Order: sequence, then structure tokens, then C-alpha cells
Amino acid sequence: MLILIYLYDGVTALDAVGPYESLSRLPGVEIRFVGRRAGPVRTGDGFLGLNADTGINDEMEADMLIVPGGRRAGVQRELGEERVLGWMAVLDAVTTRTCSVCTGSLILGAAGLLEGRRASTHWGAREYLSHFNATYSADRVTEDGKYLTSAGVSAGIDLGLRLCAEIAGREVAEAVQLSMEYDPDPPFKAGNFRDATPERLAAVAKLNI
Amino acid sequence: MLILIYLYDGVTALDAVGPYESLSRLPGVEIRFVGRRAGPVRTGDGFLGLNADTGINDEMEADMLIVPGGRRAGVQRELGEERVLGWMAVLDAVTTRTCSVCTGSLILGAAGLLEGRRASTHWGAREYLSHFNATYSADRVTEDGKYLTSAGVSAGIDLGLRLCAEIAGREVAEAVQLSMEYDPDPPFKAGNFRDATPERLAAVAKLNI
Repeated sequence: MLILIYLYDGVTALDAVGPYESLSRLPGVEIRFVGRRAGPVRTGDGFLGLNADTGINDEMEADMLIVPGGRRAGVQRELGEERVLGWMAVLDAVTTRTCSVCTGSLILGAAGLLEGRRASTHWGAREYLSHFNATYSADRVTEDGKYLTSAGVSAGIDLGLRLCAEIAGREVAEAVQLSMEYDPDPPFKAGNFRDATPERLAAVAKLNI
Repeated sequence: MLILIYLYDGVTALDAVGPYESLSRLPGVEIRFVGRRAGPVRTGDGFLGLNADTGINDEMEADMLIVPGGRRAGVQRELGEERVLGWMAVLDAVTTRTCSVCTGSLILGAAGLLEGRRASTHWGAREYLSHFNATYSADRVTEDGKYLTSAGVSAGIDLGLRLCAEIAGREVAEAVQLSMEYDPDPPFKAGNFRDATPERLAAVAKLNI
């Protein structure tokens, strides 16, 4: 089983690493990080370099594609990259699952893959899915046909474990969860935007994001 | 505020990316990924290349150091790297916090930094802390003096948010949590080793880890 994860300048590292970290633990699964071309990309904050080991021209077949989200400028650049969007559409014709984390769903939308479908995305981008004739779902992970999309950033971990269960069965997925010690205990209960006050939303806008 | 995250061949990506993803969102925080020397490293599974932007010789001051864990072979190599361990001890003399995720605590231990202290680590490595005169703590995040250590892999996310609150206050940390949509909803409840059956532990041993 081959899973491709698309990388680009501006990507959010946890969006890509969250699902990778569980899926990479499954025996028989190969994960390749693919970019517009092979080479380094930087996260949106500029702090971390990740390597795309192959370019999209070299990857025309895969069992699954996962598209992570990123900072606004990075995602907007990808939305205008016809060569990337065309590649995703071609690849999607052969995948069993096409997936996104966070604002990666906007990129899938721009590739024409979410027309008439429900999809998750980062709460801060929820109004944009309609530009691609998709309907925002506030679920942490949304399945619509073969498309599996998640909410923002950390939600990709939950999406990844769900894919693990599909690929290898629930018992193995639970062993993966144990190997990652994924028994989350956030120090605060502030992760859901539906509970956020206007002051909290304003505080998010002041972050380095 | 400068936070260094140490990278090495065999590192577990989520161990490093978990705390980075929250801390990088704090205004005024700079994160540098540092390796034995500047250049690429690979995760233990070989699937992902991460870049160390600087080498240890270039980083003799920082406010915080975070050491992620990794696969057995990678961590064992670091345990014998006197130059790395010496660097950590020198750096530790000036940090306000020295931290680890997962088996990163074994590396801190080998650097002599956890003598007589309680520390967390990956459950699968809990017997090894005693080699460094440290006592295993089953807490998800353990504080002992200025040392903050977490349990395996995904626990670094919780450690990161705790550091965010220390650095920038609880309100800002909660905004960071919201920006990461960290409202975890694991599909299964299998992440705590104290609940694991012998069959489950045997299943972990068969994974690609």
C-alpha cells in the first residue's frame, strides 16, 4: 500500500505529520512525501524544513493521497497551481481514499474533488468550502464517499487512526494508538471553536499563524 | 525567546513536531531545529526527511531545549555520542527549561541531567530511566525542577501547550490550542499502556516501529 502526502511551502507540519505518524507504523505501508518537485519545503512559520522526496511528475499512482493544510499564503498559492490541481485530479482517479487535513480540503476543492460533498476544514476557513461547491462539516473527521477530510491541524491524528483501522483492522489500529501513547490530556479545554468567545477568537488572530 | 529542538537520524517526527506546533505560534518565540551538524536527518522509518538548520557547535545559548525520542537504534546511537551529550549538559546550564518527549528523556539521562529526578518516557522504555538514576513517572507530563518530560510521541503536544502557558500565559495558550483545533477525539480508547492486555502489547511489537 502506497500513501502519498503532498508537501508545499507554507504547509503546517502537524497537518502532515499527524496522519503520517500512525500510518507509517502499519506493516506493509509505504509513505512518500511528494512536492511540486523533489526538494525541501518550509513550514509557514519558516522554522522547519521538510523534504519532498519525489515530485508530482514521478507519482502517478497511489492507494491514498493526503493533502495537509497550511498558512493562508501557502494554501492560496497552491489553489492557483493548475499543474498541482490537475495532478491531484488524475491521481484521485486511482486512489481508494483521497484525504485532507485542515485547509488541505480547500486544495482538494480547487482540484474539483469535493463538488457537492460535505467536508471538514479548519474552523477559521469554514466559509471558503462553498467556493468549491462543498458544504462545511463541523465534524472532526468527515467521510463522504471516498473522501475523508478532517478539521484543523491536530485533527489529522484522529483521521490517521481511522485510516489505520480501515487498512489493517481495529486491533492493529489500537496497537498503533498505544505505540503512539495517544491518550490525549490537553491542559486546557479550549480546542473547539464552537465554545470560543469573541475575545478568544480575537486572541487567535494575534498569534503567529 | 529561543527554543532549540534537537534532531537526529531515527527521530520520531511527531515527538519533535508536537511541541513545535504550539510553541511556534507564540509571538516572540523563535524555534531552531539543530542537529549534530546542519543538514538533513531521517525519521526512524525512513519515510520523512527533516532539516536541521544549524549544528550543535553553533548553538551554545537558548532559553529552552527540547529533545524528542526516536527508534531504538537512533536513540542508542545518541546515547553514545559524547559530543552531543556534552553539548546538552553545557546548554542546560543556561536554559530555563530542558525538556524531552518520549525516549528523549533517555538522552537527557545519558547527559547526566536527570540524576535523582522523576521523568516520563515512552511506556515501552520505562525500565531504562533507572540506568541514569532517574525514576520513571507514568504521568503524561512530569515536572521536576526545570526538567519537563513527557510520555510517548503524542504526549509532546500536551507538553507543548503547558510550555505555551508558562511562556505567554494561559489565555494565549488557550488561543494556541484553539488555533490547532486541539479537541482530540481518538476513534478508540487504546492509548494508555496501563489498560493494555498482554495481547495488545504483543501486537505493538509487530508494528513497524
